Amino acid sequence: MSSHDSIPSPSASTTPDATTLLQGLVRCPSVTPAEAGSLAFLESVLAPAGFAVSRPVFSEPGTPDVENLFATIGSGAPHFVFAGHTDVVPPGDPARWSHGPFEGAIEHGMLYGRGAVDMKGGIAAFVAAALGYLAEKPDHRGTISLLITGDEEGPSINGTVKLLEWAAQRGHRFDAAIVGEPTNPNALGDAIKVGRRGSLSGTIIVTGTQGHVAYPHLAVNPIPQLMKLIRRLTAEALDHGNERFDASNLEFIGLEVDNKAWNVIPAEAKARFNIRFNDEWTPETLEAWLMARLEEAAGNEIEFELVMEPTKSTSFLTHSPALIDTLANAIETVTGRRPALSTSGGTSDARFVKDYCPVVEFGLVGQTMHQIDERVAIADLDALTAIYRRFLNDFIG
Amino acid sequence: MSSHDSIPSPSASTTPDATTLLQGLVRCPSVTPAEAGSLAFLESVLAPAGFAVSRPVFSEPGTPDVENLFATIGSGAPHFVFAGHTDVVPPGDPARWSHGPFEGAIEHGMLYGRGAVDMKGGIAAFVAAALGYLAEKPDHRGTISLLITGDEEGPSINGTVKLLEWAAQRGHRFDAAIVGEPTNPNALGDAIKVGRRGSLSGTIIVTGTQGHVAYPHLAVNPIPQLMKLIRRLTAEALDHGNERFDASNLEFIGLEVDNKAWNVIPAEAKARFNIRFNDEWTPETLEAWLMARLEEAAGNEIEFELVMEPTKSTSFLTHSPALIDTLANAIETVTGRRPALSTSGGTSDARFVKDYCPVVEFGLVGQTMHQIDERVAIADLDALTAIYRRFLNDFIG
Repeated sequence: MSSHDSIPSPSASTTPDATTLLQGLVRCPSVTPAEAGSLAFLESVLAPAGFAVSRPVFSEPGTPDVENLFATIGSGAPHFVFAGHTDVVPPGDPARWSHGPFEGAIEHGMLYGRGAVDMKGGIAAFVAAALGYLAEKPDHRGTISLLITGDEEGPSINGTVKLLEWAAQRGHRFDAAIVGEPTNPNALGDAIKVGRRGSLSGTIIVTGTQGHVAYPHLAVNPIPQLMKLIRRLTAEALDHGNERFDASNLEFIGLEVDNKAWNVIPAEAKARFNIRFNDEWTPETLEAWLMARLEEAAGNEIEFELVMEPTKSTSFLTHSPALIDTLANAIETVTGRRPALSTSGGTSDARFVKDYCPVVEFGLVGQTMHQIDERVAIADLDALTAIYRRFLNDFIG
Repeated sequence: MSSHDSIPSPSASTTPDATTLLQGLVRCPSVTPAEAGSLAFLESVLAPAGFAVSRPVFSEPGTPDVENLFATIGSGAPHFVFAGHTDVVPPGDPARWSHGPFEGAIEHGMLYGRGAVDMKGGIAAFVAAALGYLAEKPDHRGTISLLITGDEEGPSINGTVKLLEWAAQRGHRFDAAIVGEPTNPNALGDAIKVGRRGSLSGTIIVTGTQGHVAYPHLAVNPIPQLMKLIRRLTAEALDHGNERFDASNLEFIGLEVDNKAWNVIPAEAKARFNIRFNDEWTPETLEAWLMARLEEAAGNEIEFELVMEPTKSTSFLTHSPALIDTLANAIETVTGRRPALSTSGGTSDARFVKDYCPVVEFGLVGQTMHQIDERVAIADLDALTAIYRRFLNDFIG
């Protein structure tokens, strides 16, 4: 009997926990665009559990090739998909970390490493949840897929966009998706992201007349002119937000003047900006708003150009009680807290997934993401795994 | 008798004219810091005429070595010096020139080439004038020196500053100097420069807090803060000029933000400026004026630094009737026009010479300087030679 107690159950022996999975992932230094063994590691876990695993590589001239992973198990509806990314931002100076950024060390209940919360931790939790669910319900109905890219922190060109197209071409139709990005500002259960503001970037280029600084009357300095245009754009708010979204925000993020000399008035000055905008705007109405104000400020005096960046993402809001309520209930069951439904913050690959199926985002606590000593509480990792597993149970089971 | 007519006089046969000298100089592509044969050419002309010629090379860590030329003839007072530079700014695209920038082609009475007016033309004129004067008055009293550098258009570190020190260490004491820079805006005889505004440069560095553009409340964007500081400095004039000098002028000439991303609020923003200031200011009073206004605009909200460049040149005004009236009279005699006494425009090596003796600047018409198709009228070159020769006659003779 005592010997019987020490024999683990078959399912427990074949289902790795989230902590083990996260350590395995953190130890792959998969800084965008490097795969660094991270997808191979996931395949080595998923394939033995019965997942059909594909690892398509996508290319585009001028960008690095990127490896991606699509894994699927089961058949028919509902077809649920977890989405995420194994690539991470650079660790900065490793000497400034308490533990090596690619070691996966655990201290005082915290697992340290680049990607611990953004978002290898999310992947570890949903893989552990899926494996646990499948081990418990081998005869489940429906389909579970995992859509994992190595190009979320980079240009996002050879990643989720193409992986979604690739899956669609192979007949996969998703009914709902959760992206495992860290969505909680302070504690697990704070917030589900049910939408995102859009993002639009551009450059204002003012052309003056180059000249010698001792003869300013023979030159036209584009710098004061550029400042006048910037002032006009920042003189009024785009909007004041609404019950669904925060206010839209215009931020100047770069200034460029190509002039090394001290005695030359330059010929050109540029300002780069980014706008995060809510559902009161489209890229087209924003561009019109910008041009109207720039032209007003420029009059006949300032020669300028407005160049918009091609990557535009619109705002979106997901309406799906089946997805949102089921997830919110799972969160409340595990954490005892009802999550807020949020649309704040930056973009994620959810902006691409939303074109295929209802999508929300829910993951770990984001406080240490992109920082030195990025880390996750093991307790959070286990709680998130429990939430995902509960969700699968209620949504598919 | 007819045969007698065709024999040139001895002085004419040994005294090259300014056009020939300028062609010789233009054909040396002496873009700063290259000597390119230009000083060797001058030595080959000056040494046979009896000048003691030295060609010291000056060095400074971090800057290219530069060749210079000092030539002197005669002894005792008055000791007059012509100063100038053989280095030129780059020609730009040679294909855009009507004639090769280093060919010295003559068309319709104009000599084309980089340096034609700034200032190989000035050198050609004063060398021709000195040689002509010496040929006519071999028993002249006093001393004539030529102080020629190859580092005026560049950093101006291994040029006139060191050449003046070098000459002083060898016992040379000058009574007056003319720098042959192009001083005439429209026609020969327009203006003698009898002083210069000073020049002061600096950088304003604003430190913010880097962050993600989607979370502006967690970041401090230094760009709007920098703009606030710039606005404060440009809100009022430094002064309104006086009977001696134009108004001082502050010009922003560079903006720098080290940020390639579209989704990052940068940590730092810089603006570079240059001030041309008159005799109502010193570098110290200007810096105090700047700091008072920057601190007022910054309050407790903006973290900034003001870094001044080490090369400061103060304004100066030459008071020397012996020099100024003699030159003005020579100009009026040759051109029929009385030159204005000007202090406008940029700095030149006169700012260094002024520490050793009274100095003014007078040369060709500056309109095409630093441009494609820089060129000089042969008539102007001959008139300038006549002015310089008349001046030598009156000042020394």
